[in-house]
Amino acid sequence: MALVRCCSASALRALTGSLLTQRFSRSSSSLRVRSFSSLMSPPSTAVVYDQHGAPDAVTRIIKMPPAVVKERDVCVKMLASPINPSDINRIEGVYPVRPDVPAVGGYEGVGEIYLVGSQVEDFSPGDLVIPSPLTSGMWQTYVVKDQSLWHKVSKDTPIEYAATITVNPLTALRMLEDFVHLKEGDTVVQNGATSIVGQCIIQIAKSRNIHTVNIIRDRAGSNEAREMLKKLGADEVFTETQLDVKNVKSLLGNLPEPSIGFNCVGGNAASLVMRFLRQGGTMVTYGGMSKKPITASTSSFIFKDVSLRGFWLQKWMNSDKANDCRPMIDNLLELAREEKLRYEMELVPFSDFKLALEKAMGKLGSQPKQVLQF
Amino acid sequence: MALVRCCSASALRALTGSLLTQRFSRSSSSLRVRSFSSLMSPPSTAVVYDQHGAPDAVTRIIKMPPAVVKERDVCVKMLASPINPSDINRIEGVYPVRPDVPAVGGYEGVGEIYLVGSQVEDFSPGDLVIPSPLTSGMWQTYVVKDQSLWHKVSKDTPIEYAATITVNPLTALRMLEDFVHLKEGDTVVQNGATSIVGQCIIQIAKSRNIHTVNIIRDRAGSNEAREMLKKLGADEVFTETQLDVKNVKSLLGNLPEPSIGFNCVGGNAASLVMRFLRQGGTMVTYGGMSKKPITASTSSFIFKDVSLRGFWLQKWMNSDKANDCRPMIDNLLELAREEKLRYEMELVPFSDFKLALEKAMGKLGSQPKQVLQF
Repeated sequence: MALVRCCSASALRALTGSLLTQRFSRSSSSLRVRSFSSLMSPPSTAVVYDQHGAPDAVTRIIKMPPAVVKERDVCVKMLASPINPSDINRIEGVYPVRPDVPAVGGYEGVGEIYLVGSQVEDFSPGDLVIPSPLTSGMWQTYVVKDQSLWHKVSKDTPIEYAATITVNPLTALRMLEDFVHLKEGDTVVQNGATSIVGQCIIQIAKSRNIHTVNIIRDRAGSNEAREMLKKLGADEVFTETQLDVKNVKSLLGNLPEPSIGFNCVGGNAASLVMRFLRQGGTMVTYGGMSKKPITASTSSFIFKDVSLRGFWLQKWMNSDKANDCRPMIDNLLELAREEKLRYEMELVPFSDFKLALEKAMGKLGSQPKQVLQF
Repeated sequence: MALVRCCSASALRALTGSLLTQRFSRSSSSLRVRSFSSLMSPPSTAVVYDQHGAPDAVTRIIKMPPAVVKERDVCVKMLASPINPSDINRIEGVYPVRPDVPAVGGYEGVGEIYLVGSQVEDFSPGDLVIPSPLTSGMWQTYVVKDQSLWHKVSKDTPIEYAATITVNPLTALRMLEDFVHLKEGDTVVQNGATSIVGQCIIQIAKSRNIHTVNIIRDRAGSNEAREMLKKLGADEVFTETQLDVKNVKSLLGNLPEPSIGFNCVGGNAASLVMRFLRQGGTMVTYGGMSKKPITASTSSFIFKDVSLRGFWLQKWMNSDKANDCRPMIDNLLELAREEKLRYEMELVPFSDFKLALEKAMGKLGSQPKQVLQF
């Protein structure tokens, strides 16, 4: 057992227990191959799906057998993992790249290192880590992955932010940096401003002295939403109806015309973003909540020189650029620790997964982001 | 008269005559100011408009008095100038930048140098010149502009190509070069392929061993249009109806998926261009013949990573990049002289301007580009 570095006596007992369980549940032939000294994870409780379809129909919670922890592997006891819309889309199979099934759900999260393989030097039991770049299979109690996939974060990071720092905040950060050069005093415009990405855009922009013009839906509670966004640092917040005017730019007041806009809605809300853009501006689409397409006039391309682009974090994560994602994550987590980056989340015990899933699927009305707590 | 370098005895007579005419038609006070030794152009016959509106209603042909030819000016006897759609739009006043009125129409053309100012060294009477970058006031028999505005072209250039080489062929060239890096063997896709820009794209691409997939309207004569485009070098030509299939890319055969597409139609024809694009491809809009907007799905931006851009030659002409336009024009004229760049035009005597204008405005059905011959 000299190779095992464990985070606590109880964890050690759990590990030993699991190995014993495994020994006696395996056939004698497998026993001959695997010696007792192999490092094994504890058995894991996981959300799996065997086929694509409605997530509440195809997911189930099962006990997974202990997994081998190889020399360069790290076994992480998961602490928290969100249910992101993209997780739901992946289970539905509507993403262009379908995960192989059976699969364990979840792509981001945070955990504490439980044990490390014999060749692992940079991590120790008890370290707080997140998968970085993102990787699959986070909705389970113990995850075993190669050490290269884990990124150590400061232990004083609130776990709900460590668990959610990549999918939404990194999207906001990349969109602010990858399309146009923004400098202090500039303005960006966005729709769907109450989304978590929208809230992150407001706060990251604010931390850089960049102004935001925000478009929200007309609905009960829009005044409260406006106040909430203003508290986060939004300069201007308009409902779509308020923008039903001939010249939306007259509403900019002293703010410079935006060189970039962000669209996660489509339809009229996307057209409104484009109307705010300055000559030569860019609109980046990263979502389509209204399920309506984006429509633009010929003259907006020719005379206004507008560019329409798209952003998808998964593609970015598969590019060379993702090699640099860890310092970005560290900066975002620093903002979170300083309470300069905040968004509403609901921590839900893992045992309530089905309820959290229904909330995340929108079956129970508008809900905060659901974060499973293990 | 030592300062006057004239292209012919008859031109000299015309000049002297015009100066005499001017002398006797002016008031005695102006005669005191301007000495006889000032260089003057011949009187010019010009298409002018005093207000914006329907071009056939607001344009009229008038005699302009002789103009002073200053030290660095060049007086050009115009030979030919096209009626471009953009000329019509400018007269209509529907362009974002309205020309001041009264104005002389026309933005491109070709002429022969008639006389040059005393400080002009690089031009001589008889030289064939075009305005480069483009400049206003080409629809008249004599044009006086600073020497810096003129570009000398080879005298063996067919005048109808010298007169039209900028607005359409340079648009095609810039769109092929300014958005994506195209190399031999690549494919581009376009709609409105029978337009002159479309024909230029086919031929310039062909001269670089780049393939073209071309979309044309369903109409009587589409078979003839297909054959015409194939003779110019088009690899594939489809009508919109032929593309009413689930997977347009299956029609590419062995051609690589296009990284760029060109749209001058809008509506369904623009959507078809987008469907042909490869992952990460770009569609450039430079016209909107159908008067329908461009509509794109959210997923085409997020998952297919399509970029939608626009191109407007006038904006390009006002940028620093236009400083380099003359070698580009020379290359295009070389292609024209080698008959590797051809498109249909109708040379029309200037006296038939009104008929040519009606044809150019589409009042007499589909017509070749109208080129005024002075």
